Amino acid sequence: MKTEPRTDAMLMKFQSVRNFTEKLAKPLNTEDYVIQSMDDTSPPKWHLAHTSWFFERFILKPYLPDYQEINSAFDYLFNSYYETIGPFHPRNARGLITRPSVEEVFAYRKHVNEGIQRLLSTEAESSANILELLEIGLQHEQQHQELLLTDVKYNFSCNPLLPVYQERPYSESPGESPLYYIDVNGGLTETGTDQGPAFSFDNERPRHKEWLEDFAIASRPVTNREYLQFIEDKGYEKPEIWLSDGWSLVKKENWQGPLYWFKKEEEWHYFTLNGVRRVNLSEPVCHVSYFEADAYARWAGKRLPTEAEWEHAMRESEVEGNFAENGHCHPACGKKDSGIQQAYGDVWEWTMSPYVSYPGSRPLEGALGEYNAKFMSGQMVLRGGSCATSSSHIRLTYRNFFQPEKRWQFSGIRLADDRK
Amino acid sequence: MKTEPRTDAMLMKFQSVRNFTEKLAKPLNTEDYVIQSMDDTSPPKWHLAHTSWFFERFILKPYLPDYQEINSAFDYLFNSYYETIGPFHPRNARGLITRPSVEEVFAYRKHVNEGIQRLLSTEAESSANILELLEIGLQHEQQHQELLLTDVKYNFSCNPLLPVYQERPYSESPGESPLYYIDVNGGLTETGTDQGPAFSFDNERPRHKEWLEDFAIASRPVTNREYLQFIEDKGYEKPEIWLSDGWSLVKKENWQGPLYWFKKEEEWHYFTLNGVRRVNLSEPVCHVSYFEADAYARWAGKRLPTEAEWEHAMRESEVEGNFAENGHCHPACGKKDSGIQQAYGDVWEWTMSPYVSYPGSRPLEGALGEYNAKFMSGQMVLRGGSCATSSSHIRLTYRNFFQPEKRWQFSGIRLADDRK
Amino acid sequence: MKTEPRTDAMLMKFQSVRNFTEKLAKPLNTEDYVIQSMDDTSPPKWHLAHTSWFFERFILKPYLPDYQEINSAFDYLFNSYYETIGPFHPRNARGLITRPSVEEVFAYRKHVNEGIQRLLSTEAESSANILELLEIGLQHEQQHQELLLTDVKYNFSCNPLLPVYQERPYSESPGESPLYYIDVNGGLTETGTDQGPAFSFDNERPRHKEWLEDFAIASRPVTNREYLQFIEDKGYEKPEIWLSDGWSLVKKENWQGPLYWFKKEEEWHYFTLNGVRRVNLSEPVCHVSYFEADAYARWAGKRLPTEAEWEHAMRESEVEGNFAENGHCHPACGKKDSGIQQAYGDVWEWTMSPYVSYPGSRPLEGALGEYNAKFMSGQMVLRGGSCATSSSHIRLTYRNFFQPEKRWQFSGIRLADDRK
Amino acid sequence: MKTEPRTDAMLMKFQSVRNFTEKLAKPLNTEDYVIQSMDDTSPPKWHLAHTSWFFERFILKPYLPDYQEINSAFDYLFNSYYETIGPFHPRNARGLITRPSVEEVFAYRKHVNEGIQRLLSTEAESSANILELLEIGLQHEQQHQELLLTDVKYNFSCNPLLPVYQERPYSESPGESPLYYIDVNGGLTETGTDQGPAFSFDNERPRHKEWLEDFAIASRPVTNREYLQFIEDKGYEKPEIWLSDGWSLVKKENWQGPLYWFKKEEEWHYFTLNGVRRVNLSEPVCHVSYFEADAYARWAGKRLPTEAEWEHAMRESEVEGNFAENGHCHPACGKKDSGIQQAYGDVWEWTMSPYVSYPGSRPLEGALGEYNAKFMSGQMVLRGGSCATSSSHIRLTYRNFFQPEKRWQFSGIRLADDRK
Repeated sequence: MKTEPRTDAMLMKFQSVRNFTEKLAKPLNTEDYVIQSMDDTSPPKWHLAHTSWFFERFILKPYLPDYQEINSAFDYLFNSYYETIGPFHPRNARGLITRPSVEEVFAYRKHVNEGIQRLLSTEAESSANILELLEIGLQHEQQHQELLLTDVKYNFSCNPLLPVYQERPYSESPGESPLYYIDVNGGLTETGTDQGPAFSFDNERPRHKEWLEDFAIASRPVTNREYLQFIEDKGYEKPEIWLSDGWSLVKKENWQGPLYWFKKEEEWHYFTLNGVRRVNLSEPVCHVSYFEADAYARWAGKRLPTEAEWEHAMRESEVEGNFAENGHCHPACGKKDSGIQQAYGDVWEWTMSPYVSYPGSRPLEGALGEYNAKFMSGQMVLRGGSCATSSSHIRLTYRNFFQPEKRWQFSGIRLADDRK
Repeated sequence: MKTEPRTDAMLMKFQSVRNFTEKLAKPLNTEDYVIQSMDDTSPPKWHLAHTSWFFERFILKPYLPDYQEINSAFDYLFNSYYETIGPFHPRNARGLITRPSVEEVFAYRKHVNEGIQRLLSTEAESSANILELLEIGLQHEQQHQELLLTDVKYNFSCNPLLPVYQERPYSESPGESPLYYIDVNGGLTETGTDQGPAFSFDNERPRHKEWLEDFAIASRPVTNREYLQFIEDKGYEKPEIWLSDGWSLVKKENWQGPLYWFKKEEEWHYFTLNGVRRVNLSEPVCHVSYFEADAYARWAGKRLPTEAEWEHAMRESEVEGNFAENGHCHPACGKKDSGIQQAYGDVWEWTMSPYVSYPGSRPLEGALGEYNAKFMSGQMVLRGGSCATSSSHIRLTYRNFFQPEKRWQFSGIRLADDRK
Repeated sequence: MKTEPRTDAMLMKFQSVRNFTEKLAKPLNTEDYVIQSMDDTSPPKWHLAHTSWFFERFILKPYLPDYQEINSAFDYLFNSYYETIGPFHPRNARGLITRPSVEEVFAYRKHVNEGIQRLLSTEAESSANILELLEIGLQHEQQHQELLLTDVKYNFSCNPLLPVYQERPYSESPGESPLYYIDVNGGLTETGTDQGPAFSFDNERPRHKEWLEDFAIASRPVTNREYLQFIEDKGYEKPEIWLSDGWSLVKKENWQGPLYWFKKEEEWHYFTLNGVRRVNLSEPVCHVSYFEADAYARWAGKRLPTEAEWEHAMRESEVEGNFAENGHCHPACGKKDSGIQQAYGDVWEWTMSPYVSYPGSRPLEGALGEYNAKFMSGQMVLRGGSCATSSSHIRLTYRNFFQPEKRWQFSGIRLADDRK
Repeated sequence: MKTEPRTDAMLMKFQSVRNFTEKLAKPLNTEDYVIQSMDDTSPPKWHLAHTSWFFERFILKPYLPDYQEINSAFDYLFNSYYETIGPFHPRNARGLITRPSVEEVFAYRKHVNEGIQRLLSTEAESSANILELLEIGLQHEQQHQELLLTDVKYNFSCNPLLPVYQERPYSESPGESPLYYIDVNGGLTETGTDQGPAFSFDNERPRHKEWLEDFAIASRPVTNREYLQFIEDKGYEKPEIWLSDGWSLVKKENWQGPLYWFKKEEEWHYFTLNGVRRVNLSEPVCHVSYFEADAYARWAGKRLPTEAEWEHAMRESEVEGNFAENGHCHPACGKKDSGIQQAYGDVWEWTMSPYVSYPGSRPLEGALGEYNAKFMSGQMVLRGGSCATSSSHIRLTYRNFFQPEKRWQFSGIRLADDRK
């Protein structure tokens, strides 16, 4: 039986994304799959199972007539936060679940994969609804691929042995590109996207008008070299440049630099997925919170861009850069090109925009309405993807969001400025 | 010696505002001045002293040549949060300071008042700078007048004796006005204000363009009657209508109604500054958090307005209503007029806008730059003033802001809607 | 009508004890009565009311036929912890109760006093039961007198103005008495007391046999001079001399000396009820926890006495010393006498005995059974009274008890040793 | 080369104990070795490594000249709490250490085993000191064997899948033996032991005199049947029978029965290492805290024994019973014999004695002095061993100790009484 081309393409994408998750998990020991080193992270094993549960719960159970689940308890264990589906295991207790074993979780993945393949092959033409749900499921899995990397990084950093996720040659740093500001004309612009052939999340929709004043945006993200000047100028000791909540954290947590930075024999080093290294000054600074990004900008006499400004400024940039696919798992130095650089990949860029719904937006119907909308409180938008994001996942209108104190994502800084 | 008219006017305003603070404190026992019943509140005594310190620190010390302070420790005790001025007493320990006594605090007020009077009378024409600082100091004191009332209310509510702040006749409820939605045309609107003859805070500036789609706004705030339907429809038990952080709070704090509501013999009552009463169904609902306002709106199939929408919709409304000056200290029922009602006074109205800086804004220079700007994280904007706000303090562009979980302010709900 | 002599004596004692409470409160401002500066302390106002409630609840209500209570809510507000009587106001919220006012609390005291006087005068001979309850009530009030002083001290210490409870001349320090060890023969000794004419608490009963090995006990408490050697020898930095729980506290709380000690211009000072002073090296060290007492003893190559040893060693000592009645409110230097000194008064002496019931003990019947017995977990026994204890309250068999981390009582150290 | 008989015996014991640890770990998946489900527990992997570190640190490094450690970081990772040895990994972060892997930990065990074998075989006669340290190391390992079982039980109970540690047939319950009280004569008794040929911990020494009144002791531990009567009589709702700290916990934790008990279809079940089962009413009640044991005793009109009474009463009992070696891993029903039953094994029996040092005791020299002594604060003594204790580990004078709120050990209740 022949399947329809769109179904074929989806099947290929499905296999590719699912395989990539397992490729990312390859360097892990069985033991590494189990732990949750802080409330924000999840065990690698949980990521692998939860992403499978997503397909099972939203597609296989409703649409594959004879689907048999492996274990009915998985609906409780691997539901993340969908209140309308039913009760779920407490987030902060995910690391206490040693069973199902890693092997069983991989069997669960296989079982779900086979279900999806069966579903796609049994119908000459898969319904648009199923294809759309599959697309969401794959985008969802790509988000968890990034979390898998950032969570493993955090987990490993808690071990005094500082395990190495992967051995990679230490890439010699090219000279960094100069920093300059690019003028962007404002006016009545448009932000977001409408449901089109390309996938978008509900939080990116609809495309809507937004008035922007003229502004300037930095040609590249802030580098470690620049951020080090902030540190050396006692940026972490000057309350006047910090938001009040940020300053409280600086004192409480005794922040003295980005997450993962530490001094060894008087020199700054950082923990990376490729091992401990001396800080490469030419790379974009990474693992800073919104509070640090904001304080840095104030110290530099600039500001962060709004998300509308960011989107407007990047509209012509290609989606290319240092992504998860190349396996570097660490921000890379910039090149000496002109124009806007590193718009995508390397580091997520904090914007000064709180994460709220777009005018006229409507969340998805049903449980998937909980996917994005209910988090629209207390979080800030980040744009552009990172070295842990898949290139096929990121796009101009993509909105990532985290609380302003979070630092374990690959988050960095691009400055903006008002036009004089 | 004759003073200049603008100085005269300022002196009169100074005396009037300072006296009003003391009038609000009149019903308190000495004991009532001392306590801090949660971290968000401050002891009445502290409000009285801190507002005086503000004039002393920002005006008298720099500008009155021979000014003698009463006690140099007050600079530590009564600085609220100005990091650039110096260290200050921890906010959560304000209620442990029994000395200076209430009497000494009133003497401190008198001392500062005399200093200001001397300053204003010694110069034929007070400098614009001093007049501007005085204006800020008075606006500041008016903010603390409102906090004094809300803090006393919260303090008293923690006492099982439920003390009465003031005896007031129970006003018979007029029938409430009908709820309808008023269409407002959007387009390229302007929000905020520019430095003009009238006072504004730095966070209201500059006047800037904002694109709005057409929208509709409710003719009046949500009433207790309407909110009760939400409660009875199990609004507090439906996770799907709540923001995630809000739902966590509902469960953790076991919220079942607005702050101060409780059931007595099967009927809803509330604690007010005028004593415990049966809930008046025709009044605007009050003491709800942003999370509750947002959940109510979702339950009602509507949404909250943005602050730009609110400002645009209220542009023609008069600043009139139920304010602190009339001594009611409680939201009042609406009247049966047409058009937008209760735009000002009664209850602060939560907007769906996070509190961020306006495009092109610049905080004040020096320590006063800490007044507003450093709180631009994690808070939501409220508009319109309440029954505890002075009418001379509120204005169209005024931005109040609190964290989305706070409920001890007189905060209520006005709904908005997209235009179909 | 003539009352019976024993009743007369009780009435005199009643008036004397009740008056002494108010005398101790005399130096307080109205504001000082209100606050609770940590969970362990209670507001002075609460002490005054609770001690009155005790007489009202256990004597007047059951035994004075026409007794009228002032306010039925006091039964909730001023019950401390008697579960069997009914619900009570949470301990940690006692400082949020500004009403009843201080004046009303004094009126409550007067009301209760009159009730007791009426009760004692209406019967020719008061029943033994009532006299016994009165005795307990007075012993109870004396305990709260001590707490009133220690709580005021702690409250004032939280105020950067460091208020002075009373002005007292700084007594020149006499040379301290030499420290030597007194041999005490052990054997089959007796500890505790049996119900006799003299009052005792249920936790002191019954008198029972205890086998003791021969031991030695220090002639006087450890002085500040000696304790300073411990500090200077880095006693607070040596984990090996600390109990595990104590060491955790040292690190968490950053203890570097006794409570109330601080360095000013390189010299140790302490906060006292008589103001801030340079540490008098000849006085007994005070405001140390059990953990510090135990660590000091280990550092000194000695140990603390058990409570049976303490009682056995002090059996011949007179109950005399520096008590609350003399108004010094601070430990005094020792005199140069021979034999055991400062057995009573000055500082409570930590023993190495956990607070448990004596063999064959029986708690009181009814709610008063909750007085002592339910605290027999996690606390250590202290003996001998302090400068804040009334001389008429302390006795050889008296058992005080606090958690090993507490420091706000006047608690000190007397060493003991095994016999070589 | 021939080794000396005492050395031979030690080698055999060494191999036997070390093997038994690994036998207990046999049913675990790799994943099960990693987690720490609360601060009190440790990951199985950590137990396996820490017990090896103990031999390495205290014996191999000082005494085996050419000993090569596998990884110098293990000294930090697997030191439990020996402050005098050096810094150690925080206790509550033991579950975040996925590396070294389980395999590497087993290799570490092997490496240490070989070291010990080499040490014992290289000298014709091992020094008494080394043999003594080995004995301590083995006793230490046996303690961790018990913790391994209790920790695995707790870990598994946190998993909604309720994994089964081992499949065991459900043993039909024999009728339980009747409960009666055995009179024991007191007098001047002796408690503890002196250093003899048999091993004892420092906290069991020296043998010392203690005066005991005549008392009675229960013939067997309290059964589930009896405890259920306490539950059904609302024992968990009666504050008057609880210690104050216990009552706080009952309310805070909502205790309604022993740990691991839950109701399923109206019937009490418990989670065991052999799976979930209906509560066997004839077994000794288990997994109760001291607070529950104490409340039960008060409810029953009895009391717990002191540790001296326990030791005196059990002096003639054989060390026999239901121990770890038989693999039952759960308390067993009693038999219908006369005399004292189940003195050893089944459940640890809470005594009413706080854990303090014996008169004249001296902790071990050096770091091993930290083994027992520094925990002599805030803990209660338990006696007799449990179904998770090795029979070769327990003895008459053995003192176990835990905080009064702990419930995850196999802890039960034996009642005592004063003689009328």
